[in-house]
Amino acid sequence: MSLDTVLSRIDSDLPDALDRLMHLLRIPSISTDPAYKSDVDGAADWLVEDLKTLGIEAAKRQTTGHPMVVGHAPGDGPHLMFYGHYDVQPVDPLDLWHRDPFDPELQDTPKGRVIRGRGASDDKGQLMTFVEACRAWKAVHGSLPARISFFFEGEEESGSPSLVPFLKAHADELRADLALICDTGLFDPETPAITTMLRGLLGEEITITGPDKDLHSGSYGGMAMNPIRVLARIIAALHDETGRVTVPGFYDGVPELPDDIRAQWEALGFDEAAFLGEVGLSQKAGEAGRSGLEMIWSRPTCEVNGISGGYAGDGFKTVLPSKASAKISFRLVGTQDPLKLRDSFRAMVRGMVPADCSVEFTGHGASPASVMSTTDPAFERARQALSDEWPRDAAFIGSGGSIPVAGYFKDILGMESMLIGFGRDDDLIHSPNEKYDVESFHKGIRSWARILAALT
Amino acid sequence: MSLDTVLSRIDSDLPDALDRLMHLLRIPSISTDPAYKSDVDGAADWLVEDLKTLGIEAAKRQTTGHPMVVGHAPGDGPHLMFYGHYDVQPVDPLDLWHRDPFDPELQDTPKGRVIRGRGASDDKGQLMTFVEACRAWKAVHGSLPARISFFFEGEEESGSPSLVPFLKAHADELRADLALICDTGLFDPETPAITTMLRGLLGEEITITGPDKDLHSGSYGGMAMNPIRVLARIIAALHDETGRVTVPGFYDGVPELPDDIRAQWEALGFDEAAFLGEVGLSQKAGEAGRSGLEMIWSRPTCEVNGISGGYAGDGFKTVLPSKASAKISFRLVGTQDPLKLRDSFRAMVRGMVPADCSVEFTGHGASPASVMSTTDPAFERARQALSDEWPRDAAFIGSGGSIPVAGYFKDILGMESMLIGFGRDDDLIHSPNEKYDVESFHKGIRSWARILAALT
Repeated sequence: MSLDTVLSRIDSDLPDALDRLMHLLRIPSISTDPAYKSDVDGAADWLVEDLKTLGIEAAKRQTTGHPMVVGHAPGDGPHLMFYGHYDVQPVDPLDLWHRDPFDPELQDTPKGRVIRGRGASDDKGQLMTFVEACRAWKAVHGSLPARISFFFEGEEESGSPSLVPFLKAHADELRADLALICDTGLFDPETPAITTMLRGLLGEEITITGPDKDLHSGSYGGMAMNPIRVLARIIAALHDETGRVTVPGFYDGVPELPDDIRAQWEALGFDEAAFLGEVGLSQKAGEAGRSGLEMIWSRPTCEVNGISGGYAGDGFKTVLPSKASAKISFRLVGTQDPLKLRDSFRAMVRGMVPADCSVEFTGHGASPASVMSTTDPAFERARQALSDEWPRDAAFIGSGGSIPVAGYFKDILGMESMLIGFGRDDDLIHSPNEKYDVESFHKGIRSWARILAALT
Repeated sequence: MSLDTVLSRIDSDLPDALDRLMHLLRIPSISTDPAYKSDVDGAADWLVEDLKTLGIEAAKRQTTGHPMVVGHAPGDGPHLMFYGHYDVQPVDPLDLWHRDPFDPELQDTPKGRVIRGRGASDDKGQLMTFVEACRAWKAVHGSLPARISFFFEGEEESGSPSLVPFLKAHADELRADLALICDTGLFDPETPAITTMLRGLLGEEITITGPDKDLHSGSYGGMAMNPIRVLARIIAALHDETGRVTVPGFYDGVPELPDDIRAQWEALGFDEAAFLGEVGLSQKAGEAGRSGLEMIWSRPTCEVNGISGGYAGDGFKTVLPSKASAKISFRLVGTQDPLKLRDSFRAMVRGMVPADCSVEFTGHGASPASVMSTTDPAFERARQALSDEWPRDAAFIGSGGSIPVAGYFKDILGMESMLIGFGRDDDLIHSPNEKYDVESFHKGIRSWARILAALT
């Protein structure tokens, strides 16, 4: 009965919950761009104040980068820790947005009502599902159902440079029985999911320098090495003809999918053609002979996230540039060692740079994959709670995205994480016109209330 | 005697001539960027007014792009036409300039006094050498030594889209006995040169589209094709291991260097190590077995002048981009057919694009190489006049840069061109901190006075 009261309270409070989310979405907390530093700070302040309205002792905690927000609510039963991040991705290319990314609005679409704006799904909307569930619980019961710690990060989209030092410095304060992380998706709009396999991420930026200044391609072309040519050869060599990554030792620690998991995934009925078709593609680009779900959940990848060099403005400029750069990232699985792969990648690149050119490397994050242990009965109880809320039963799935914090929680705090989120594949996270379905938000809040009831 | 008087006048007028050049350099006439359209127009107005001070009937002549400046001075003897261009290259990367590119100044350097600013060498300073020679001649003699037409273009740095239509529409007005073009360089600071071989230019911009929107590399990486990967494979395939360009049919019409020209070039004592060393390189990047002068004067090339795709800002963004673009140019020699090569290049690129990706092409100029006929005795007279001014005798040389106008003058007006210029290899044209030596400017003006005397 008491859960039903909480769920009713969530339903009636939805308009106000949406208003609160809109406030948070209006703060352009882009962590990767130093120009937005004060906005990231402002988003942290907003969250501290919001947690305080729940009677939670919360504070902004400084780091050498953007601040963490930490709050503690006392209570009986298990000690749960909830993690989300309040920073967002950059918004470029801005001209592809249909409205200001930081002027969010509710929009009716053929697939339902959505919240449109940067961070609506990743991760402000998701973060607030848990906060709103707690707010409703508190309103109905006067207190939360368990001892709960809140831990919000402001650097998730920029490689989390302060996360590990902060966890190490405050391990005793932050350690709980179980972490709840809301930064993943539904399997499909009707099927909720608990993500138990997460790919790791290795980010590398390489800059090739050829001539020590930009040259005229007429005066020097043919005789002087062009760094774009060097960079293109390196990138072209990163995959072989079958789509496999060629970095030496890359597949060390990459496990084959166990038969039972493979069977479970096949039963999900993943529509590869529809998945690619929604983004205008028709061919799987990964390793030959792998299923689509393997490619995005359980196989490692190499992507070029950005490339630049020479003149890229309007018109044409016959420059032979001094420098060319690329941002390259690797998604990692199993026990692939990111630092070992970084060394192997850099050695491979160095071997392809002509003697009179040079290469500089900048590392952007290096986190291994995470595979959750689902033997804790809490996983099965949460799966049942989710199944009660949604049309179809919840599934244990993998995720292509990297959520390194789960690995750090395990390594540094010895704490398992349960990854539950309500994003959809078409949320356009990291892209122009990001959205979050109002249904994801509403049923997400309700799902957390059910899970809190089930775990306590 | 009268030539000496003109030369003395040039010497005494040098400070005023530098002042006039500074005025012209302050106008940011970047033709390739639409934002500077009114400035390109303003530079044309400035030149019209300056020619009028010489008593020359001059006017700005509209085209569908930037205007031409045309002036005619009556006179006896041969009809000469002088060509230069008043538009300049873009200035990016702006942060590598040591001062505002359009706030020029005279600077003392270890190699002598220079005029620093965008366009100082390419081509405003060079253009003004001829105008100033005419000004001195007129001041001394009251008239010019021949019938001279002035033809200044404002689109040379953006592919000259209006040039051919304008030449065709005004062929009778513009046709002269010989064109004088000042947009080339000295062989070295002591050795003047008449350029008789000019490479042509084919410019191509290609844009690869993979997914129809930017994607999250975690959600899609491994399954969705990355257009940067497609583009890198194309660029990497444009040269083979020996440095030859792989576009089918590329070497059709590329002649071997005649033995006499090869011997003449070998006698020039070109220091390949010093040429590359000045820009921080040590290895020739062109076709194996070719000399450095061949690589930059008489062999065709393929360069990537710019590349872009995905996130190139500060930090890291795990985007799998929808599009990737490159600006690619080919320097052409002999009788290579630019339009045929454009077709062959595009067919090769199309063949490398996966079925579910697409490619768009934008052409940026297509001009064949020019090889001058030096049988006209004017060439030898001009060579002698140059040799009188400079420490070492003038040479007939090739040029890596493309000056398509010489080919158009021949094809459309049936007019030979004599290319004489005073730029140095270290002028940083098309690069940050462009300069023109005051000696180039001063002796350039004196050289034109001597050439006018020799040709008339």
